[in-house]
Amino acid sequence: MSGEDTFKTILIANRGEIGLRIARTCREMGIRTIAVHSSADRDGPLTRFADEAVHIGPSPAKASYLNIPALIEAALQAGAEAIHPGYGFLSEDPDFAEICAAHGIVFIGPPPDVMARLGDKAAARRIMAEAGLPVLPGGEGTADTATEAKALADRIGYPVIIKAAAGGGGRGMRVVRRPQALLRAYSEARAHAHVAFGDSRVYVEKFVERARHVEVQVVRDRSGDAVHLGTRDCTVQRKNQKLIEETPAPRLPEESRERMAELAVRGAHAVGYEGAGTFEFIVEDDGAFHFMEINCRLQVEHPVTEMVTGVDLVREQIRVAAGLPLSLRQDEVAIRGTSIECRINAEDPYDGFRPAPGRIEEFVMPGGPFTRIDSYGAPGMTVAADYDSLLAKVIVWAPDRGQAIERMKRALTEVRAVGPAMRTTAPFLLEVLADPGFAAAAHTTSLVGRMLESYPGEEAPC
Amino acid sequence: MSGEDTFKTILIANRGEIGLRIARTCREMGIRTIAVHSSADRDGPLTRFADEAVHIGPSPAKASYLNIPALIEAALQAGAEAIHPGYGFLSEDPDFAEICAAHGIVFIGPPPDVMARLGDKAAARRIMAEAGLPVLPGGEGTADTATEAKALADRIGYPVIIKAAAGGGGRGMRVVRRPQALLRAYSEARAHAHVAFGDSRVYVEKFVERARHVEVQVVRDRSGDAVHLGTRDCTVQRKNQKLIEETPAPRLPEESRERMAELAVRGAHAVGYEGAGTFEFIVEDDGAFHFMEINCRLQVEHPVTEMVTGVDLVREQIRVAAGLPLSLRQDEVAIRGTSIECRINAEDPYDGFRPAPGRIEEFVMPGGPFTRIDSYGAPGMTVAADYDSLLAKVIVWAPDRGQAIERMKRALTEVRAVGPAMRTTAPFLLEVLADPGFAAAAHTTSLVGRMLESYPGEEAPC
Repeated sequence: MSGEDTFKTILIANRGEIGLRIARTCREMGIRTIAVHSSADRDGPLTRFADEAVHIGPSPAKASYLNIPALIEAALQAGAEAIHPGYGFLSEDPDFAEICAAHGIVFIGPPPDVMARLGDKAAARRIMAEAGLPVLPGGEGTADTATEAKALADRIGYPVIIKAAAGGGGRGMRVVRRPQALLRAYSEARAHAHVAFGDSRVYVEKFVERARHVEVQVVRDRSGDAVHLGTRDCTVQRKNQKLIEETPAPRLPEESRERMAELAVRGAHAVGYEGAGTFEFIVEDDGAFHFMEINCRLQVEHPVTEMVTGVDLVREQIRVAAGLPLSLRQDEVAIRGTSIECRINAEDPYDGFRPAPGRIEEFVMPGGPFTRIDSYGAPGMTVAADYDSLLAKVIVWAPDRGQAIERMKRALTEVRAVGPAMRTTAPFLLEVLADPGFAAAAHTTSLVGRMLESYPGEEAPC
Repeated sequence: MSGEDTFKTILIANRGEIGLRIARTCREMGIRTIAVHSSADRDGPLTRFADEAVHIGPSPAKASYLNIPALIEAALQAGAEAIHPGYGFLSEDPDFAEICAAHGIVFIGPPPDVMARLGDKAAARRIMAEAGLPVLPGGEGTADTATEAKALADRIGYPVIIKAAAGGGGRGMRVVRRPQALLRAYSEARAHAHVAFGDSRVYVEKFVERARHVEVQVVRDRSGDAVHLGTRDCTVQRKNQKLIEETPAPRLPEESRERMAELAVRGAHAVGYEGAGTFEFIVEDDGAFHFMEINCRLQVEHPVTEMVTGVDLVREQIRVAAGLPLSLRQDEVAIRGTSIECRINAEDPYDGFRPAPGRIEEFVMPGGPFTRIDSYGAPGMTVAADYDSLLAKVIVWAPDRGQAIERMKRALTEVRAVGPAMRTTAPFLLEVLADPGFAAAAHTTSLVGRMLESYPGEEAPC
């Protein structure tokens, strides 16, 4: 397919590995790419790879990657017909999507009104419950007073979890195990939500202790055709940040897997979804599952889905945004084998995962059989402290989970990112892969906390 | 699977990308690896990756990688139960396989007598003809006098090709287009065969002008179960050296593809093959095909087969050598999509493909969706002039050939191997990928010669 079928020029409103990932598919589709960059990213691999690079501001994200006027101006100047937001930054901001539309620029993502409705996590919960998706016991909407929250918690029973309505990605959630702790947790959660999201509304849900995190990848086009591309397990998390992801989700009864996928597609139809989206579920030991939230964007962990399905998700996003149909039907989706992704962060896992950016002197990534690398590191490069610490994703494929784990261990032993201050999470990820609970897929979201023996009781482990 | 099911320790009698590729699978199988290395490869990535590294001699291959006593001693010292020879060097040497056996070491490859029979290309031609494989018109065995060769050529008609019986891999072949040129070509071919292989015997075959090179990957275990893993097209060659390989072979009628695969399996049974082997065929415009030779080893281009089948060929080789059954049956082999490999050689394509080794200062390999790298390069490393110039293999996968070509173009634009003397073939490979004949899969083995406009008439283009 040539770019003429979709867009001639796309501006990539992101950086790092995902910026490069998007630019690669654009190039393959014959689409010209505009990379925008902050001062810190001036000499990065994305600015070199893209067809054009535009400086949009100083290093802090607020002044560059979150600077909507600068992005719009760069797109108009470069003649970009569409903007791909990647993940993070403005990827789930309905206002940005609307501003793009107002300037005649296609935002590669769901329509702004869909993003807005799903961005309110309490509202999304209600909409999906109406569509028939199982949700955990909880309120109909937000709990706007402490009294309301207390009454609700007493009714559904402890433990409960208090979440920000405007939140997502697990940030700032509070688990409450005793009635006495509710009021304080409620105030804290509201305060945190206000600071983090500029919106103090919170909602209350039953909290599942031994939980796994499973999600379904869905893509839906403008004509209303939708496919799911299987499940991903993202149970290995530290403070709600995913470290290792895999597909298919292991230890999930086949009927749960099918039902979950079917319900995710139903949910996508119910809300008029367009593009690639992820339905997140919490799964109990027995395979019972509950809807959590929808991520209206490409996920960091999307490559594992690509490895088992052969579907290029960025390509599907671009096709859908251009009004083209999906490139395959559900009966053409075949899942082959198992894929695992490890996130290599520039952090010191043995010092509280303290960010450890700086200059990279030696940089070696794994290669060889069934191994994919999505990275933006290079020798001589300086990892900026201004952004998240994701340096590379190592993705492997194998016919079964056991072989995939052995392959990932092999791959991680090849990782070298050496610099005066540089540390990576690779050694810790090797420990997780060697954990008998992980090997047996018997782990829950508490695995990492337990391994670190520093699991903070107040923070939700889901 | 743990290493206990196969071998505890394997010595890798090779270097470069293939040494590393073998070591990776060994590690994944829980097998300890012994890397042997020459002086030039002392600090290479294989010696770092392997569990143990043994220096076996100075840089010239004769003194190290071809030094059988040193290899056997290293294996015995290290307690290696098996030796993987990779490709090149001793990989097709039945004497080496026999010497291994005499020392109680498993040679990972077919039995010595099978290698010896197939190593005589004239004999292999006869055996396969008896097994029902189509061979080109030619002699029953070698042509041991010029008179015999002349009579044969007159009978089968010009053009003919004269090949070394002990040869293979296309080295030193002579195409003869006119009766007047036969005698000289015959003497030259014998002289070349003597120098190159220590065996001056040659044989004569009909030469196909507009030919494509297609091969079938076969694996057969000790119990006699065999599978084929589809076809590979290796038509893009320069002076019989493959530059680009792909699977499935394009423009091959489905009945030719099926018949070719079926005959390759039949040939493997006929000769009592064990392990991974490749049946090479020459294919005419209309899909008619003729057996050429069998390569008794892993091929450089094996990754494309791995990409579309999900089968780890090195793993299968190790399993078979350990007496285990193949890990899958023919009805479990599924071919998905298309894969292309480009060989990145340290050569200057615009100066007669002159080897261009030396120090690498900057080394960037492609990554991202559906892209695999098998390489051994690294910044700061010096590419030795003592060995072949293969620096890296870039392998991509896509749902169809058109997308795979676009993906490979994208990947090649990412290749950077920079040094004072360093040049790579990547720019030329990009030219091939952009050739309309290649895009339409209408090319023959003469493509590269034509592109270079320096095609030497005396050298066989097949």
